[in-house]
Amino acid sequence: MSFSEVLKELSEGVPGSRGAAVVGMDGIIVEEAAVEPGVDLQSVGAEYGNLLKGAQAASSSLAIGKTEEITISAERAWLVMRRINEDYFIALLLSPESNMGKGRFLLRMAADKLIKEF
Amino acid sequence: MSFSEVLKELSEGVPGSRGAAVVGMDGIIVEEAAVEPGVDLQSVGAEYGNLLKGAQAASSSLAIGKTEEITISAERAWLVMRRINEDYFIALLLSPESNMGKGRFLLRMAADKLIKEF
Repeated sequence: MSFSEVLKELSEGVPGSRGAAVVGMDGIIVEEAAVEPGVDLQSVGAEYGNLLKGAQAASSSLAIGKTEEITISAERAWLVMRRINEDYFIALLLSPESNMGKGRFLLRMAADKLIKEF
Repeated sequence: MSFSEVLKELSEGVPGSRGAAVVGMDGIIVEEAAVEPGVDLQSVGAEYGNLLKGAQAASSSLAIGKTEEITISAERAWLVMRRINEDYFIALLLSPESNMGKGRFLLRMAADKLIKEF
């Protein structure tokens, strides 16, 4: 299953999704699927890419293992990021009216599918 | 209700909790309640304090409002951080066997109580 198929299935599977992307730890997007027009996933990747890297450094320093997932709830958007491997993560951008639980569940499924592609 | 009472109620209310703390955005702990012996909340605050600050900067730059909450799932620990105001947040450290949903719910209640104390 290609990156774009996995991302499309993920972002269309969660009502209230704004888009999904495979992102490098440097914040640069490899592939994206925007559901809502006008959503700038490039900027989201650039702004939040460093955060997952910072969290990885923190969890490693605290000896609590790899950081697998981060969720961020802002007033007008939610973001769930899940580690694929050392270098890449998958991100799902949601509206605050959406179902974060379903988003997290489908994101985990999508990450499992993508791991096989790397 | 004092900081320590709120933190004690929070950390004892979630089975699998390791502790809770009120932390400054600089990562320095104001008050803490460790449930599990040997848990070093000071180090957790220091390692993750910057993350919430980074997320606030990102959400502000993307014009999606204030960052209200961050959850981090590492292999051997979960952390939920919730913004109290510009300068402080409340953090709850959980074991991966605990109930993150209940943790997030009680953390929100605790943050609402603490806002009145600042």
